[in-house]
Amino acid sequence: MSKINIGLFGFGTVGQGVYEVLRRTKNAHAEIRRICVRNLAKPRATEVPDGLLTDRAEDIFGDPDINLIVELVDNADASFSIVSTALSRGIPVVSGSKAMIARHLPELIELQHRHDTALLYDASSCGSIPVIRNLEEYYDNDLLLEVKGILNGSSNYILSRVFDHGESYDDALRRAQQLGFAESDPSFDIEGYDALFKLIIITVHALGRFVPAEDVFTFGISHLQDADIRFAREKGVKIKLVAQVAKVADDRFTMFVMPELVEKSKYIYSVDDEYNGVVIRGECYDRQFMFGKGAGGLPTASSILSDIMARLHGYRYEYKKMAFSDRPSYTTDISLTVYVRYASTDIPSLLDFTGTTVRHFSPGANYIIGQVKLSELIAKRHVLGAKDVFIANIPTFFVEKDN
Amino acid sequence: MSKINIGLFGFGTVGQGVYEVLRRTKNAHAEIRRICVRNLAKPRATEVPDGLLTDRAEDIFGDPDINLIVELVDNADASFSIVSTALSRGIPVVSGSKAMIARHLPELIELQHRHDTALLYDASSCGSIPVIRNLEEYYDNDLLLEVKGILNGSSNYILSRVFDHGESYDDALRRAQQLGFAESDPSFDIEGYDALFKLIIITVHALGRFVPAEDVFTFGISHLQDADIRFAREKGVKIKLVAQVAKVADDRFTMFVMPELVEKSKYIYSVDDEYNGVVIRGECYDRQFMFGKGAGGLPTASSILSDIMARLHGYRYEYKKMAFSDRPSYTTDISLTVYVRYASTDIPSLLDFTGTTVRHFSPGANYIIGQVKLSELIAKRHVLGAKDVFIANIPTFFVEKDN
Repeated sequence: MSKINIGLFGFGTVGQGVYEVLRRTKNAHAEIRRICVRNLAKPRATEVPDGLLTDRAEDIFGDPDINLIVELVDNADASFSIVSTALSRGIPVVSGSKAMIARHLPELIELQHRHDTALLYDASSCGSIPVIRNLEEYYDNDLLLEVKGILNGSSNYILSRVFDHGESYDDALRRAQQLGFAESDPSFDIEGYDALFKLIIITVHALGRFVPAEDVFTFGISHLQDADIRFAREKGVKIKLVAQVAKVADDRFTMFVMPELVEKSKYIYSVDDEYNGVVIRGECYDRQFMFGKGAGGLPTASSILSDIMARLHGYRYEYKKMAFSDRPSYTTDISLTVYVRYASTDIPSLLDFTGTTVRHFSPGANYIIGQVKLSELIAKRHVLGAKDVFIANIPTFFVEKDN
Repeated sequence: MSKINIGLFGFGTVGQGVYEVLRRTKNAHAEIRRICVRNLAKPRATEVPDGLLTDRAEDIFGDPDINLIVELVDNADASFSIVSTALSRGIPVVSGSKAMIARHLPELIELQHRHDTALLYDASSCGSIPVIRNLEEYYDNDLLLEVKGILNGSSNYILSRVFDHGESYDDALRRAQQLGFAESDPSFDIEGYDALFKLIIITVHALGRFVPAEDVFTFGISHLQDADIRFAREKGVKIKLVAQVAKVADDRFTMFVMPELVEKSKYIYSVDDEYNGVVIRGECYDRQFMFGKGAGGLPTASSILSDIMARLHGYRYEYKKMAFSDRPSYTTDISLTVYVRYASTDIPSLLDFTGTTVRHFSPGANYIIGQVKLSELIAKRHVLGAKDVFIANIPTFFVEKDN
């Protein structure tokens, strides 16, 4: 491909960022030929030449000059329809729609193979941090043990305000919304689903396994209360929303998204505000840490641009690890040490602990620190979903040391 | 390439690490076919099957089954001879010899083009951190502004012992040597040349420019004294050996290696012990930080393995940025704010400051904080080389704030 002629779907913050970055870099190898939007009349911050915008998808699909589609549409169904149509016609796609990709990845991989074309989505995970491509290209030969990190900028921003600035959870959420880090409906971010979708995509490229969203334990930060913050402060730790996938044996791995009590000595302890940070652990290189802006128009646009430029060189993900014969299998049969805080919900009798270290009772905020199976947490999702319950993972050393 | 048959030159720590990792990963796509060493009789920690070792290079070059040469030889001349011979015969090479690569890169690029083959050397920069490939692949479209970091694990280990553990410089150096982080002749590490060679390679992939080692100001940590450590402690900063390349205007960039007074708020402040950390700054994604083990047999071996596996997919560096018409030019005509400590050398009259902020006189340890041109530092290398002189870069905000 000597020149990339882009058909862009969606012209929100990221779409306008891509347009802006391409203009500023005076890039001679890529040009946006057409932009398809749902509503032509909608006022937009970025001015574009006459005729560039259209509301007819066929103006892009039917243009033989367009050799790459960039999909930045904020609706998972529309986004899947655009991406699958493009791939079926053999047109390569760059997409930033993590929810859609996390849901449809097996079909999308199949479509890429069948029509000998490519779908790139590095921007879908961790904004500007090149996690996917690094896992795909750089960590493919090594004995990868774990990928763990803070993958959602909005919830991390809220937790930072709470821990570092002493704000209440509600104030922090409001501020995040004012700054545009959290959506007006922020549940996607703060309930952990955004991090989950990224984790699902990461797991495909880390271990060659696709795990559907409904099979993964996911617990967000919306039930966080002052009692939890006090508890964490007293122990000298921070509460972070952490997504992780880890080998637990040669042939098995586990994954989950939940708050974690993070010690000062950990890399992710210092990942604050809207930043993302990912630790990749392998048997040979020990730990690698990547850190960068995980949200915002320009950082994400910059990642989209990297995917666009990669197409100039014919790059595609090869999903090599999915073909490995000794891929590990997903298991939830592992034991975690957790902190569970509750008020009226009868956690001690509803949740089956295999061992408890601490039982604390005080008006309105009891907590248990104990061992519980991940499979039990999944089975008791409805119990843990009660508004008065909050759960956080405790890496074992912490319990051993402090209790 | 369906299977990689490796001819390995050199069987020291890293070579044995590669052998070990390949064995442990039971990798079906890569196999070491022959290992060429200088001295067959030398005892080695790793046992290998009979006949694998040879002392004749032609046993590798002349074997038609060998389709990749991995060069891990600890002598720059021998290493260049092996790599250039291999490339001239059209055999791709993976090399970890940074000194050799930093010196010969233009010829090595030319050889790759002429014989349509590839030389990969990600392991040469920052051990296990994938800096080169990320710069080459991921940051090629963006407005890259700066790459700055701690690129030498041994000197960083020494500085960590001094600052975090209160050891004397001499004790720290001895301990580094005991642990195998520093060579018995540690000058390569502590005089900054190791970091310089990595910086030269990084600059080729960051900005498309090759700058010869002798044109770059390089100052190490061997002149560090207690007075400098006291000064840094009083100011609440750490002294780190920092290598950096930065755009200073649209069409110009500068680069140098020297100690820096690093504030707590900076990412590299927390890069301790034998770790490396690199900050990549761009106009769109702001700052990215990559962190990992920069030294040691297995981390480096793991990086070599990544390069080997990349060859399975035909990967090569494209040196795209060297072809850009608007590459920036190297300049030393920039002003730095520096701390210069001295005793008998008459720094005030020998070094031409364009402005001074602080002049401090005390028995045996005077210092000046002032502005000086980078070109002046290069011109006065012989003055700064005096054993009683130590110089450290001070990012400007620090001076403005504290003085």
